[in-house]
Amino acid sequence: MNVLVLGAGQLARMMALAVKPLNINIRAFDVGSGNVVDPLSTSTIFGGLEKGIEFADFITAEFEHIDHQTLATCEASGKLRPNSQAIKIGGDRRLEKDLLIECNVANAKHQIIETKEDFEHALNKLSLPLILKSALAGYDGKGQWRLRDAAQAEEIWPDIKAFFDGGEKNVKHAVVAEQMVPFDREVSLVGVRDSQGNTKVYPLTENHHTNGVLSVSIATQVDERLQAQAKEVFDSIANELNYIGVLAIEFFQIGEQLLVNEIAPRVHNSGHWTQQGADTCQFENHLRAVCDLPLGSTELVRPSAMINILGEDTVPNEILNVASTTLHWYGKSKRTGRKMGHINVSGQSEKELALRLMQLADILPEAAFDELKPYVSAYQTKLD
Amino acid sequence: MNVLVLGAGQLARMMALAVKPLNINIRAFDVGSGNVVDPLSTSTIFGGLEKGIEFADFITAEFEHIDHQTLATCEASGKLRPNSQAIKIGGDRRLEKDLLIECNVANAKHQIIETKEDFEHALNKLSLPLILKSALAGYDGKGQWRLRDAAQAEEIWPDIKAFFDGGEKNVKHAVVAEQMVPFDREVSLVGVRDSQGNTKVYPLTENHHTNGVLSVSIATQVDERLQAQAKEVFDSIANELNYIGVLAIEFFQIGEQLLVNEIAPRVHNSGHWTQQGADTCQFENHLRAVCDLPLGSTELVRPSAMINILGEDTVPNEILNVASTTLHWYGKSKRTGRKMGHINVSGQSEKELALRLMQLADILPEAAFDELKPYVSAYQTKLD
Repeated sequence: MNVLVLGAGQLARMMALAVKPLNINIRAFDVGSGNVVDPLSTSTIFGGLEKGIEFADFITAEFEHIDHQTLATCEASGKLRPNSQAIKIGGDRRLEKDLLIECNVANAKHQIIETKEDFEHALNKLSLPLILKSALAGYDGKGQWRLRDAAQAEEIWPDIKAFFDGGEKNVKHAVVAEQMVPFDREVSLVGVRDSQGNTKVYPLTENHHTNGVLSVSIATQVDERLQAQAKEVFDSIANELNYIGVLAIEFFQIGEQLLVNEIAPRVHNSGHWTQQGADTCQFENHLRAVCDLPLGSTELVRPSAMINILGEDTVPNEILNVASTTLHWYGKSKRTGRKMGHINVSGQSEKELALRLMQLADILPEAAFDELKPYVSAYQTKLD
Repeated sequence: MNVLVLGAGQLARMMALAVKPLNINIRAFDVGSGNVVDPLSTSTIFGGLEKGIEFADFITAEFEHIDHQTLATCEASGKLRPNSQAIKIGGDRRLEKDLLIECNVANAKHQIIETKEDFEHALNKLSLPLILKSALAGYDGKGQWRLRDAAQAEEIWPDIKAFFDGGEKNVKHAVVAEQMVPFDREVSLVGVRDSQGNTKVYPLTENHHTNGVLSVSIATQVDERLQAQAKEVFDSIANELNYIGVLAIEFFQIGEQLLVNEIAPRVHNSGHWTQQGADTCQFENHLRAVCDLPLGSTELVRPSAMINILGEDTVPNEILNVASTTLHWYGKSKRTGRKMGHINVSGQSEKELALRLMQLADILPEAAFDELKPYVSAYQTKLD
């Protein structure tokens, strides 16, 4: 079986490694260069999307910011999974908000801002504080503003305007303003749906962000009612989209209530722990769904966590002395803040996991992992 | 880090997949063609061992039947791990028997046979029944004879003679005759030793052979004293060889006593379950040792088993519906009896594992997996 992945980053790489044993061959379409590349070495195999489509039994994507012409060409081949609508929704916060309302799932109140008038209208309609996110590239902390005080409005608007003007020319830029929710924690649900409509979801994962970028995820046994609430949201969104593959949903948790923050129509950073901690990893399950193979069990094997390596191309080898620790590099060149790799760690119990996380926090350099120790320390305290 | 593996089969392939996340790049030297190949696609990267050695930070092997000149060339580079002596011993049953005696570990009585006189001498010195194995290629059921009755001797000798004559010309052929041991079961120990002399071993694995070829392995929590006995044997052999990497030891178990049958200086088929069932898989641990990284934990995560796929290039997709089941194809072309892939399966308990094994046995075609169901059935009975 041959699969073309739109995008040639770490997610395509981890898909390729996960499904080679199933005799599924992955090639990646580098949307930047227009070349089809080996996802492990990123060396070019041949040029052109058309040949890539010809090679493939199925086509999927590792990210949502793909130009619509490429998506249309892939969809016309009948091989694209998930469908282009689902991918586009992940790449446009306006469509995403429409979907959440359509599916009747809880999410924060919002207003769309394209002009100064919209901005003023939003300030009237929504209560402060607000978070404003670029509709088209609002992820990993880019194109985001926070407005805590009405007095800041005059300061922020020129910045948003400059962001619109600096962006792509042929696109209608917008910002989605949302009421900031005083949440207790951020969690995400990674799940998978096949072409028959079967769905399976992994346990809810607790996520910690540093400067707007995911830094740590922890997956443990979850309160059944909360998990059921998340599964219901997953099913309604995935069914509405007639989705095939892995889909991730980020939530704000407020008490026992989950509010959808955003969705990602792909394998997700907060699901990397599944490589060691779940029965079938998200990468394999995505390709099982895409290739019409039976979905694998998404059960937690043991409490597990993931630590992102951001902007660093080495970590001390001693982390490999910590039991149940695996290191995953993406083979990318170093750049400040870039996702370079991740560390997975597991324990037979939550306490053992917390202990190992602390061992890792003690070894990893504080400068590059500055929020790890306080976060793990708070997690340990919660368990006591 | 770059590593050259001598041999381009499934073991090199699984090494490459296991350590790509550690940024260790594996290339494989195909001893047949003399080319350095990509272990995943087996397509040639360049020709010649010398260039392969130049590429590599370290060199290792996936099998023991490597000509001595190749081993000498690799060893001269200072990069070969384990050393050539260890690899040679694995490829010559005479040397292997000498080592076992040197290490003072229990093993079956034997005699070396190169001539008709040796054969007659062996019949006098050893008690029947005997197993006779080719010293140089005695693995996976090739070059083996069983002698249960003295009357068979006249029948077998011409066969052995023909085997000698049909073999390589410049080699001194021999057969090692051993007293057959009335063992209760066959078990193996896979372990790893680093350049500092640290060792770690996986739990003893129970192995079932079909026509002399491994068909099923089961790894569960093991009696501590038996495990300690096996670990002691591992340490004495690995230390004697000043071994670096993964080493496997096959035993006959008779009551509470372990008798060494043979050793394999490499990752081993009976250790494939570690991909899903152990904290660190044997492939990663082998490369961790070879590349001077800390050894990974060898703890059992949960009871696990492996089923070999012999001579078949498809299995029903429904096996992927059985929880905790993963399928590993080697990307090889179909040939009768050939190791084409394997299936790993795990359970939270031995009973759950046995149940899933039975589910698999019910799905897999009986013609190709004829001993699976009776074996699993007997295993289930033992647990009741």
